[in-house]
Amino acid sequence: MDTDIREHRRRWLAQEAAADRIVSRVGALYRTHGVVTSLGGRRLIGLASIDVLGTITRTAVHPDDLTGVDRELADLELILDALTEIEPGPVSLDLTALSAGWRREGGTDPVRHLRAALDLPAGVSPAAGAGEQRDHGEARDVVLYGFGRIGRILARLLITHAGGGHGLRLRAIVVRPGGENDLKKRASLLRHDSVHGDFPGTVTVDEANSSILANGTLIRVISAADPESIDYAALGIHDAIIVDNTGRFRDAAGLERHLAAPGAGRVLLTAPGRGAIKNVVFGVNDDTITAEDRILSAASCTTNAITPVLRVLQDAYGVDHGHVETVHSFTNDQNLIDNFHTGDRRGRSAALNMVLTETGAATAVAKAIPALAGKLTGSSIRVPTPNVSLAVLNLELETATTRDEVNERLHRVAASSTLRQQIDFVAEPELVSSDLVGSHRAGIVDGLATIVRDKNLILYVWYDNEFGYSCQVMRVLERMAGAHPRVLPARVPA
Amino acid sequence: MDTDIREHRRRWLAQEAAADRIVSRVGALYRTHGVVTSLGGRRLIGLASIDVLGTITRTAVHPDDLTGVDRELADLELILDALTEIEPGPVSLDLTALSAGWRREGGTDPVRHLRAALDLPAGVSPAAGAGEQRDHGEARDVVLYGFGRIGRILARLLITHAGGGHGLRLRAIVVRPGGENDLKKRASLLRHDSVHGDFPGTVTVDEANSSILANGTLIRVISAADPESIDYAALGIHDAIIVDNTGRFRDAAGLERHLAAPGAGRVLLTAPGRGAIKNVVFGVNDDTITAEDRILSAASCTTNAITPVLRVLQDAYGVDHGHVETVHSFTNDQNLIDNFHTGDRRGRSAALNMVLTETGAATAVAKAIPALAGKLTGSSIRVPTPNVSLAVLNLELETATTRDEVNERLHRVAASSTLRQQIDFVAEPELVSSDLVGSHRAGIVDGLATIVRDKNLILYVWYDNEFGYSCQVMRVLERMAGAHPRVLPARVPA
Amino acid sequence: MDTDIREHRRRWLAQEAAADRIVSRVGALYRTHGVVTSLGGRRLIGLASIDVLGTITRTAVHPDDLTGVDRELADLELILDALTEIEPGPVSLDLTALSAGWRREGGTDPVRHLRAALDLPAGVSPAAGAGEQRDHGEARDVVLYGFGRIGRILARLLITHAGGGHGLRLRAIVVRPGGENDLKKRASLLRHDSVHGDFPGTVTVDEANSSILANGTLIRVISAADPESIDYAALGIHDAIIVDNTGRFRDAAGLERHLAAPGAGRVLLTAPGRGAIKNVVFGVNDDTITAEDRILSAASCTTNAITPVLRVLQDAYGVDHGHVETVHSFTNDQNLIDNFHTGDRRGRSAALNMVLTETGAATAVAKAIPALAGKLTGSSIRVPTPNVSLAVLNLELETATTRDEVNERLHRVAASSTLRQQIDFVAEPELVSSDLVGSHRAGIVDGLATIVRDKNLILYVWYDNEFGYSCQVMRVLERMAGAHPRVLPARVPA
Amino acid sequence: MDTDIREHRRRWLAQEAAADRIVSRVGALYRTHGVVTSLGGRRLIGLASIDVLGTITRTAVHPDDLTGVDRELADLELILDALTEIEPGPVSLDLTALSAGWRREGGTDPVRHLRAALDLPAGVSPAAGAGEQRDHGEARDVVLYGFGRIGRILARLLITHAGGGHGLRLRAIVVRPGGENDLKKRASLLRHDSVHGDFPGTVTVDEANSSILANGTLIRVISAADPESIDYAALGIHDAIIVDNTGRFRDAAGLERHLAAPGAGRVLLTAPGRGAIKNVVFGVNDDTITAEDRILSAASCTTNAITPVLRVLQDAYGVDHGHVETVHSFTNDQNLIDNFHTGDRRGRSAALNMVLTETGAATAVAKAIPALAGKLTGSSIRVPTPNVSLAVLNLELETATTRDEVNERLHRVAASSTLRQQIDFVAEPELVSSDLVGSHRAGIVDGLATIVRDKNLILYVWYDNEFGYSCQVMRVLERMAGAHPRVLPARVPA
Repeated sequence: MDTDIREHRRRWLAQEAAADRIVSRVGALYRTHGVVTSLGGRRLIGLASIDVLGTITRTAVHPDDLTGVDRELADLELILDALTEIEPGPVSLDLTALSAGWRREGGTDPVRHLRAALDLPAGVSPAAGAGEQRDHGEARDVVLYGFGRIGRILARLLITHAGGGHGLRLRAIVVRPGGENDLKKRASLLRHDSVHGDFPGTVTVDEANSSILANGTLIRVISAADPESIDYAALGIHDAIIVDNTGRFRDAAGLERHLAAPGAGRVLLTAPGRGAIKNVVFGVNDDTITAEDRILSAASCTTNAITPVLRVLQDAYGVDHGHVETVHSFTNDQNLIDNFHTGDRRGRSAALNMVLTETGAATAVAKAIPALAGKLTGSSIRVPTPNVSLAVLNLELETATTRDEVNERLHRVAASSTLRQQIDFVAEPELVSSDLVGSHRAGIVDGLATIVRDKNLILYVWYDNEFGYSCQVMRVLERMAGAHPRVLPARVPA
Repeated sequence: MDTDIREHRRRWLAQEAAADRIVSRVGALYRTHGVVTSLGGRRLIGLASIDVLGTITRTAVHPDDLTGVDRELADLELILDALTEIEPGPVSLDLTALSAGWRREGGTDPVRHLRAALDLPAGVSPAAGAGEQRDHGEARDVVLYGFGRIGRILARLLITHAGGGHGLRLRAIVVRPGGENDLKKRASLLRHDSVHGDFPGTVTVDEANSSILANGTLIRVISAADPESIDYAALGIHDAIIVDNTGRFRDAAGLERHLAAPGAGRVLLTAPGRGAIKNVVFGVNDDTITAEDRILSAASCTTNAITPVLRVLQDAYGVDHGHVETVHSFTNDQNLIDNFHTGDRRGRSAALNMVLTETGAATAVAKAIPALAGKLTGSSIRVPTPNVSLAVLNLELETATTRDEVNERLHRVAASSTLRQQIDFVAEPELVSSDLVGSHRAGIVDGLATIVRDKNLILYVWYDNEFGYSCQVMRVLERMAGAHPRVLPARVPA
Repeated sequence: MDTDIREHRRRWLAQEAAADRIVSRVGALYRTHGVVTSLGGRRLIGLASIDVLGTITRTAVHPDDLTGVDRELADLELILDALTEIEPGPVSLDLTALSAGWRREGGTDPVRHLRAALDLPAGVSPAAGAGEQRDHGEARDVVLYGFGRIGRILARLLITHAGGGHGLRLRAIVVRPGGENDLKKRASLLRHDSVHGDFPGTVTVDEANSSILANGTLIRVISAADPESIDYAALGIHDAIIVDNTGRFRDAAGLERHLAAPGAGRVLLTAPGRGAIKNVVFGVNDDTITAEDRILSAASCTTNAITPVLRVLQDAYGVDHGHVETVHSFTNDQNLIDNFHTGDRRGRSAALNMVLTETGAATAVAKAIPALAGKLTGSSIRVPTPNVSLAVLNLELETATTRDEVNERLHRVAASSTLRQQIDFVAEPELVSSDLVGSHRAGIVDGLATIVRDKNLILYVWYDNEFGYSCQVMRVLERMAGAHPRVLPARVPA
Repeated sequence: MDTDIREHRRRWLAQEAAADRIVSRVGALYRTHGVVTSLGGRRLIGLASIDVLGTITRTAVHPDDLTGVDRELADLELILDALTEIEPGPVSLDLTALSAGWRREGGTDPVRHLRAALDLPAGVSPAAGAGEQRDHGEARDVVLYGFGRIGRILARLLITHAGGGHGLRLRAIVVRPGGENDLKKRASLLRHDSVHGDFPGTVTVDEANSSILANGTLIRVISAADPESIDYAALGIHDAIIVDNTGRFRDAAGLERHLAAPGAGRVLLTAPGRGAIKNVVFGVNDDTITAEDRILSAASCTTNAITPVLRVLQDAYGVDHGHVETVHSFTNDQNLIDNFHTGDRRGRSAALNMVLTETGAATAVAKAIPALAGKLTGSSIRVPTPNVSLAVLNLELETATTRDEVNERLHRVAASSTLRQQIDFVAEPELVSSDLVGSHRAGIVDGLATIVRDKNLILYVWYDNEFGYSCQVMRVLERMAGAHPRVLPARVPA
């Protein structure tokens, strides 16, 4: 027994040491070459060693096989060393898949294997050619118009994903004129969050320049009552994507006002758009974005949670019709205690009630998957939790299936398909909503709850309606900016 | 304008005076003759004048027609006067219906009309023949075994419905041995409730006799670890119905232990029973109760909420299959903050999470409506509200229908059918869960939320999972005791 | 045992019948003669019989002495009969005290006793002389400017206390322009409340006149962005008291804008006033109100809760210095989830946090009790409950005392002094905050928690920061209107 | 502007790279030499690079001086390199202080400076002599008896602080017999937490050995109903410290039952002990622990929060008398919704109420600071938050002081005294309770709220009543085990 205990300890210490080395390499590759590494869909950049280890174990084929974990660590080190040698340009690499592929092919020369996988003939370093680009980059300016729940999480994501500064560059946030300590208060709201915890890193205030400096990103705070009163260009901001988080404008006429501001280039609305505005759910219809689209919407959190899953189900079984009931955390749009609200029931105390409300989230799915037009209805029940929601999809499929088949398909999709960033699959008997705070995925299928009877499928999809949604918005932003890196290995279509 | 104001005031004062008189008559008829009066399904006994007025207005055909309300009040007074003259025996009378019937037939001689409606030839007073019975009564002893949320609400109902003492007679509550101030603590829990408010009336403690005296009902508090260790007979309790609220025993073998106690007659479990135990949903299958049934279950709160509605829908349209998702308030079975629990997910903090759990409530419907066997699935999502839940019925019907048709049918059923005590129908645009605390019905249809597309119906049914359910338990108890009074006018089958 | 049970039941039925009769008389005296009756400080008007009984028992000297309760009921009936005979004018009568006084003096001729107590020589009916006045009354128009938490409770109080229409007459509420269903929405907010429950009575909407009719009170709903844009006079409203519940204006300059509106007479602010505005705590300094005061403040809920108690303590022991820590329910001024707020910490989620904030409530006490100027400090901790707060007074007295002495004094003050409407005293071992929702008093001393060590006193004062405070505002309103009825028997100075 | 932006980015990338290197060295020093490094009281081990950077900035003298941060990073690297060369034995080093000292002395030869600071003559490596010890160590077995909120956090701390395995070694947890999936459920409760988030690392289950393996620590899960029924020795556990988290036993008689189990050595109760048991508040009276103390108590969370602060205040100003009001998060000892509880008020719904209760936390201070015997009173108000509490100390001092003086003193104490692990000092205008989840300190002074008037001081002390307290328990455990490492630089007495 005592031997066991020491053996386990010794092995753990070795694993920690390996994880420390992995963390170093992951950071260097990111900063120097713009390489974004992930394991089974989970981004590694910025993680502590212990979390890297946790991720490896969770994504291992046999998490209880300690020898397997040792080997996986060794492989990862080899792969990362090879990458460091190759110096690839900006690329998003899933190490789990790369390492599995390398091992499958014999596991002999990682540099050679990776060059092949990356389409780099021996001797060619992409860094060489891409050096210029890497130096002054193609950084795209981004402005957050509105600094509420979604605005602040987007700020955190833009700051922590700033990398070498060549992708999206958060340049300004626009807020309504507040008061004396406005700048400090905005910085404080970025620093602390009752739901998501403290900002990882440092936030300081530069009163003289009305700016916040966060982890090396300098952000101008602009007070303005209206979009057209701002001159971004005068602040050195050019061709910026304006991300509207206010919910104040929903149609083209309103959102076009942003484009009247010098320095504004495109607009992304973080809410469902009205009229002809394209509603983009990343992973499902982001390929419809064209250079001509000056105004886009990233749809709603609920639409993002369910559309990728519906894409999979529609393709596999066909959806005859269905209903989506989303049990949703309260949002700041509701009231603490009963008070006036223009929307039905939404004025009643969010802290004390279940509040049944209408939602367009289910019908909006058809904007991304036209085949579902007219097939879905939806309602929402707001409940007193501050974050994370649960969509219950009740679908009549066109083809009968079984619980195991649906679960296996979604598990597979979550592990390795083109929708792996959008869909997660969990089967944990003790899972509850708060466990999913901070999930990067658009939706997380709760496999243990799936019910199937012939053509009738009831599927439970959790989502962090703040963080998971903001990650989807980020993906749309990257695509709009052309900053979405090449992804390797190529994902299998879902 | 000023004239209007005075006229409105004058009319209101007259209405209040009339309501005061109605309250007096309602009380006297109840206490002296055991007459239970209600208006459109809402019991009048014990209400304040203002609430009687509120009820009249709400149940009026045209609530805004003030002259109509005046006339209704006048009619009610006439009807109540006539009843006082007739002296009927114990009977449950819906005054709305009686008064409408009388008016329909010309509104001339209320005494004659009522005698006809009550099947009493002129000159015969049921009181005469029933006098003996009314004097020493057929009071049936009841014991509450367990004094948790349901036990305490049942105590409140038994006490406030005790009337002349001829129906159900709460004789004892059985609790686990507590400590020094046990009796006072139990009395206090009866007196105050964080959700349902203060007990209406007075609760005092008689330490010498280990009893609580509540509104004239003397209740023995028995400390016992096990059912068979109690001698009810020695306390003068005979042939009692033991209401088991503990959830400790679920099957016949366990519940039979209650019958081993001298003085125990029958057992009613306030939870779903396992095995061969009949699960009774009042209004749906209470007519299957026989004198031989010594052990019965009143099913669960959710089953009570949905079964009456499903009865109506099955009869009208046929149910091909369906799923019931109930968004449920937390219960004391869960934990405040994460801790151990034998059930999956139920150990996680109920105050902080949505907790997805299994429920047998949907499949249990088939015990009351055999035609639905195998047709329904169900799940439950526990959320951080303390009371009132919402069942979402997603049904594929056998016959297509429309939203209006379903709503009209359920509205009608709620107003005047045999299921009018079980089903309520509301169409209030600002309704939220806390508005329904204290509802007497098993389930309340939220008509504004109903969705129908051909054969697919999504129906939202609220329920006070504590109070509404306890009212259903009371109805089963009354039937078990033969204490359920004659109901007039006879309700139209749903 | 069985005899006991029947005897208890029989007695209870008789008590209920007596209570029914008492309710009738109480209602008639109120409506016809403007007589406001109460028992030990608890208003009887509008109560159900059962609650009248509960009140009698709770206010009885020996609540467990059932014979005593019987006698009390009989006495009350005699007193009420005598009052009905005497026909007194508008007066507020505490029946507990009147009945005790009558009994003390021999309990022989209640009419003679009451005439003496009411200062009415035999044969004189105040009704005779006051008839004229009673007919067209001295009703004072009241306008609620703002319809938030406090505004809506004031509306409920004004409506249910409207009586014969001779005191305060709610004529209008002013709201910010809302939208299409504005009137219906305001009516709905009056009808339902997640904390205080349903409105007692009926609320209907008169769209044509932009009015709400509630229990016979016709209320104009005025949409206005600014005070001076309203013409009350054109709506037949004259010399009205404008109750400002918006918190938008705090100083004389801002509040005077209300007086610019034709028809406005005086202004009462339901928040602490700034500058020279008198802060009135009813029961403590309402006697400083003069006819010249056109703008008054009713101070804050916390100031109202603690000032009466501090008045008593200052008079009895002298207060050297002290600190008031109030643990306060959240208010709509805070945010559901973190968001911007001009005040420190108040922007952070009220539903998830303890929020430490500054409060002027303790220093504002000196506006009502100048002797305490500079002696008190205060802070507030907002916590996630929706209503009812707890002030912890930590005082260094000038004279040493004991726990028993302080408690006995405050118990006495709560029972019979001039501050009996302001101060309640409870000693219930299981009391928690939700039990006090709906308390009419400004503050409720929790006697079991009192700590005294020599000159150091720690006193716990609960308060319903919405309802109890609104009752205090009503009292100020009545005094401003000269509508505060004569109070009998005269209260002993605290 | 654009230059600024790039310059900031460049600097940040360099800082991140430096932080990565620091993380590697910190991990290696910990694992190989048992060196625990911290910055300004915050432990560095296991942190992500970004959090190391955040900590450096927060602890920097001028957080906005970016050049200063650069220099600090460079210094830290030098210091860590020197330490790696020196190979010190197990020691706890505050790098902020070490680096400042080295710079003060000229900042020339870090190895020489550190050797001096560590009392190591040149050429001597402690590792050499201590090698034997480092290899098989003096690891002390620890058993967690009870696995509730505190038990689980202690498990997390013991596992993540296991280091090279030479200090405290968590060998077993004892739980009440649960059911079929007991082991998996316990593992899951360790893995997920609704308040503290996911376990950092990996938790797997070894059903065959009834063990959990967490980050290399193998933990036996023992099901037992009573302490004396366990044979730890048979499981290879010897002379273990049994940490009783059940709250079931409070006095010596009860706790001695643990010592009856073979393999048990000492007992530590994580609750206030009754009778003669020593209540230890680490930092204040842990020096009174002797080898003879077989049973100790770590006092309560509240006592731990306030005692260190009271120690400082008593020494500086003298405390004449005072009262402690603690506004406390609910705990699992309370009920979700009203139900029976032996304690007054504690049975009432914790999720819905403020619950005023007694607490011995203030009087228990005297067990650690005898001079305060009889001088303090205390009460507790439980409110609906799940974690973090706030103690309000209202003290009459013997010497007058000022707000600034008190705050400066406590700030200093928190930064560098012997109580720096116990006391934190914050002055953030937007701070609320949830920001302090996960604080390692016993209590955190909220400097902005401090009130002083002559001798009257009101001080606000936050505490994570779960995590902060558990850290204090860990410190007592380390001392009991002799595993508390040497601390350098020596802290200045508070």
